[in-house]
Amino acid sequence: MAVIKAAILGFGTVGQGIYHILNEKREELREKLGVELEVAKIVVRDTSRERVPGTQHLLTDNIDDVFAEKGMQVVFEAIVNEEPAFSYLQRAIEHKCHVITANKVMFAKRGIELQELAKKNGVFVGYEATVAGGVPIIKTMKNILLVNDVSRIQGILNGTTNYMLTKMRQEGWSYDQALAEAQRLGYAEADPFNDVSGQDAFKKLMILSDLAFGEQPAWSEVEVIGIDTLTLDDIKAANEKGLRYRHVAEVEKNAEGQIIGKVAPMLVNAEHPLFPIDDVFNAVSMETNYIGTLTVTGPGAGMYPTASVMVEDYAEIIGKRAGFVVSI
Amino acid sequence: MAVIKAAILGFGTVGQGIYHILNEKREELREKLGVELEVAKIVVRDTSRERVPGTQHLLTDNIDDVFAEKGMQVVFEAIVNEEPAFSYLQRAIEHKCHVITANKVMFAKRGIELQELAKKNGVFVGYEATVAGGVPIIKTMKNILLVNDVSRIQGILNGTTNYMLTKMRQEGWSYDQALAEAQRLGYAEADPFNDVSGQDAFKKLMILSDLAFGEQPAWSEVEVIGIDTLTLDDIKAANEKGLRYRHVAEVEKNAEGQIIGKVAPMLVNAEHPLFPIDDVFNAVSMETNYIGTLTVTGPGAGMYPTASVMVEDYAEIIGKRAGFVVSI
Repeated sequence: MAVIKAAILGFGTVGQGIYHILNEKREELREKLGVELEVAKIVVRDTSRERVPGTQHLLTDNIDDVFAEKGMQVVFEAIVNEEPAFSYLQRAIEHKCHVITANKVMFAKRGIELQELAKKNGVFVGYEATVAGGVPIIKTMKNILLVNDVSRIQGILNGTTNYMLTKMRQEGWSYDQALAEAQRLGYAEADPFNDVSGQDAFKKLMILSDLAFGEQPAWSEVEVIGIDTLTLDDIKAANEKGLRYRHVAEVEKNAEGQIIGKVAPMLVNAEHPLFPIDDVFNAVSMETNYIGTLTVTGPGAGMYPTASVMVEDYAEIIGKRAGFVVSI
Repeated sequence: MAVIKAAILGFGTVGQGIYHILNEKREELREKLGVELEVAKIVVRDTSRERVPGTQHLLTDNIDDVFAEKGMQVVFEAIVNEEPAFSYLQRAIEHKCHVITANKVMFAKRGIELQELAKKNGVFVGYEATVAGGVPIIKTMKNILLVNDVSRIQGILNGTTNYMLTKMRQEGWSYDQALAEAQRLGYAEADPFNDVSGQDAFKKLMILSDLAFGEQPAWSEVEVIGIDTLTLDDIKAANEKGLRYRHVAEVEKNAEGQIIGKVAPMLVNAEHPLFPIDDVFNAVSMETNYIGTLTVTGPGAGMYPTASVMVEDYAEIIGKRAGFVVSI
């Protein structure tokens, strides 16, 4: 059986999810894809802490170990900030590795650059996991764009804030209570700024803008309003009228060809497709010329949803017989 | 520029939609895919009627003309019943043509057979348009199944009945009024039996069952209840309670590994993902092991939505560099 080697960069929730899925689905993936994937290196900052039993021998804090490994051809990246993620993936691509990333902060800023570099090196970049967790919005949009033009995208792109708005409405929790519970459940970071301010949704929106329009609006011109502007009273008052607040990110190409983006709380009624999207669910609607409006909904966060779409990216790349060198 | 030739079998709404999209998107498709697609034959029963100006010279009522054409490599099929559609596509595949079909009646019964024949002949079968019109449920599910297991599918798969239920609720129309209007708008056939009885949704459900589970339940064991069992009073009474009737098709694999299918009206409340799906919209929810529940929603019928996913099938096949022989 042909074996190809992979590395996982970052071994938090998502990185561990990838490792578990690759183990659980080893037989099935081998059978479907005709090759065996072996996780040969896991890059972490602190190698003294074995997060998953039996992985100690794979841990390294030195990215050079990844590229020194013979047969390395796939790099999964689940680190948080722009650096060192970008530099690592740049090197991976130059080493002719396919790269699969969940890093929206990096990809919103450097995604186009990374994809151009990959094209030049004959490898693929999978980035389904950068937007909307388990919701396969990138693949759906890529496929639609083969024939359709997308004119507008509207979505709930942050699971944490949607969870908070849901609980404030359903349970009458205060903003602070809802945030504390989101943190306890691991949805929100210790510093929740990126979620509640809308910055996280904004980054994801910019990635969708790149894909749909081939460009982004100037970041300074995108209005980004967080849910921290909403009080429990606002939410209660809306609920009494049969309305709900959703934290909506939208980007569109206007008649003059300008790209306009916005992230803000929005009141929706029961007829709106985003009305029933509760808890950590995400949803993305696309307006297209031939199909009309398409909406994809699913879990926007979590170990398995996010890790699973990354493994799907890998399977899709393999399905393309993407220039893998197989060693028997 | 390399040119590959295509035929369109059946030149009703969907067939004409394919022709229009291929013309409108000629430049763009050529640029994206690196080949030019030329519609060289259109097979109809009555060649005396030119449905689209400028197509008279392409019309034929003889399928042999399709295979006699040098360089024929793609066959789009938009005929209604099992025969002659199946025989035509069988011959097309044996002639090493990729085939793309919108024919759910044929595909529910002969889909697996056709796909096996295609595999043997090294060509592809595109069948996105057989289920849920413009909603890319087949591609979404195929992709998910690379890594996830699907345990249950639930959806609104018939646009006509969903339109009728919507109008009865919103406008207070009787069943007969709603049906007449659906026919006037071209949603329902002159004989509406297949739509209102649930048979149309049933066929689509069987195609999804094949894909998700590799098998179908015995057709005789699937309970199929139409919307003709519902009265305006039922719908009004539900609406007063904040509930809505949806015509839901579902199939699942139970704990014993049995495949159980059902098509029937179902009462849903405002929290249910199918609650806001009005008019001719379709929606499909899939329960999966890693991602959780994913829902895709969009227009379930119409010339452009359906034709557009067929052209996407073509573009996807080309993207696979699927053994096309290119003539310069």
